[in-house]
Amino acid sequence: MTRAQLIVQIKEKKSFLCIGLDTDINLIPKHLLDAQDPIFEFNKQIIDATKDFCVAYKPNLAFYESQGIKGWESLQKTLEYIPKDIFTIADAKRGDIGNTSSMYAKAFFENMNFNAITIAPYMGEDSVKPFFIYDQKWVILLALTSNDGSKDFQFIKTNGKPLYQEVIETSREWGSPSNMMFVVGATRVDSLREIRKIIPNHFLLVPGVGAQGGSLKEVAHYGLNQDCGLLVNSSRGIIYASNQTDFADHAKFEAHQLQRIMQQSLDKAGLI
Amino acid sequence: MTRAQLIVQIKEKKSFLCIGLDTDINLIPKHLLDAQDPIFEFNKQIIDATKDFCVAYKPNLAFYESQGIKGWESLQKTLEYIPKDIFTIADAKRGDIGNTSSMYAKAFFENMNFNAITIAPYMGEDSVKPFFIYDQKWVILLALTSNDGSKDFQFIKTNGKPLYQEVIETSREWGSPSNMMFVVGATRVDSLREIRKIIPNHFLLVPGVGAQGGSLKEVAHYGLNQDCGLLVNSSRGIIYASNQTDFADHAKFEAHQLQRIMQQSLDKAGLI
Repeated sequence: MTRAQLIVQIKEKKSFLCIGLDTDINLIPKHLLDAQDPIFEFNKQIIDATKDFCVAYKPNLAFYESQGIKGWESLQKTLEYIPKDIFTIADAKRGDIGNTSSMYAKAFFENMNFNAITIAPYMGEDSVKPFFIYDQKWVILLALTSNDGSKDFQFIKTNGKPLYQEVIETSREWGSPSNMMFVVGATRVDSLREIRKIIPNHFLLVPGVGAQGGSLKEVAHYGLNQDCGLLVNSSRGIIYASNQTDFADHAKFEAHQLQRIMQQSLDKAGLI
Repeated sequence: MTRAQLIVQIKEKKSFLCIGLDTDINLIPKHLLDAQDPIFEFNKQIIDATKDFCVAYKPNLAFYESQGIKGWESLQKTLEYIPKDIFTIADAKRGDIGNTSSMYAKAFFENMNFNAITIAPYMGEDSVKPFFIYDQKWVILLALTSNDGSKDFQFIKTNGKPLYQEVIETSREWGSPSNMMFVVGATRVDSLREIRKIIPNHFLLVPGVGAQGGSLKEVAHYGLNQDCGLLVNSSRGIIYASNQTDFADHAKFEAHQLQRIMQQSLDKAGLI
């Protein structure tokens, strides 16, 4: 998917919501366990219920890998089921030496036809470049994550600035705002403001926003750029809003709530 | 596998060789392509030929993932085929927030029964800890990699020392020398000496040694500790030593060559 196509979708749906498909066999409603492929059945109903309110889906690979070969089948079916105009992100956090990253690129971009993949930066440029060979595919590089462990290394001072800034400044040259995004946790709104100065044009994938929309307005305030430039992710707040038979309705409600706040923010920024 | 069991194996085989199973369908001998599962058939013959000279096998996940579900089947069969006294490493370079890392741990330690997995450090402690829950399983954390891109971030000065040293100093407390190793590229022998001062007791997984054994003696000189403390990996130099029908004999020859040099080093260090 091109940047222009992504922006069209955002404006049409008045949303920059990404829904994380962290589908855990132990957390989905019990009545689905009788289905032939419970994980796919859950995802299918979530997608049906939420597809009008989001512009991206982000399956978290670990949840599928933990189910072995069956999990990969569920993932493949899920990907095929997602409407083609919705952006798809393999939340895989891969990254290895060049010839190995080429293999990961083949796995996620050729075989599974994801639009984007999340990548860890530690191994540097040659671990990321092989993903850029594919036209209309995206690398989403970890910059500042939303977990506690982000404090261990991402905030270490290097050349007078935190490591995550150094990562962004160095890596932004590897791709362009048309094939590269950065992960920036929503729990760090101050940092988001700084990051926007360094990369005014790139899209940011922002995890860590709860269903309550608390920090969503702040994220939008500091993160929106002239093309929106944000994909804000919610996973558990939407997909596990209920674990009863009406789970899809609850997911729809939560997704719609977030979409409404996003619409206000886009409106306020003059983007729609 | 416990540290003691690994050391016993090293002393018995007089080897600290790890063989990387980076099995690429495009590089294996053509006559294998008629087999029902060419990748497994290749691995099987490589394992049969080399198992007396190595103490570990390290399948590189990307090569299997790039083959889709078939690739996962090949991987699973390979793992089951590896003799149980040989250490197995999933070269997967995973790492994510806590609940997601738990899923990866389940995938690699429970479902597939690997002894160890390689992990990227960028997301910090809570991305690594879930792997330590499993008894007799190992985390192998990326510290200093052997690729060109390692220069981008791993050598950045932080608190007056390179980032990779900071990563080692911080993370060594997360586990112990009985469940944690570090990746240290063989292309950085100076750094290896420094690293040994910081972690005298940990095992190091050292990639980047060629079949020629050039730097292997140096790696052994600076890297060996009182329990050996090294797993030196060779992938392509062994498994692709020939692409003809006699590929397994050539792999055996190359593995044996490296084992001989290792035996000399172990002997010289008074370890056997």
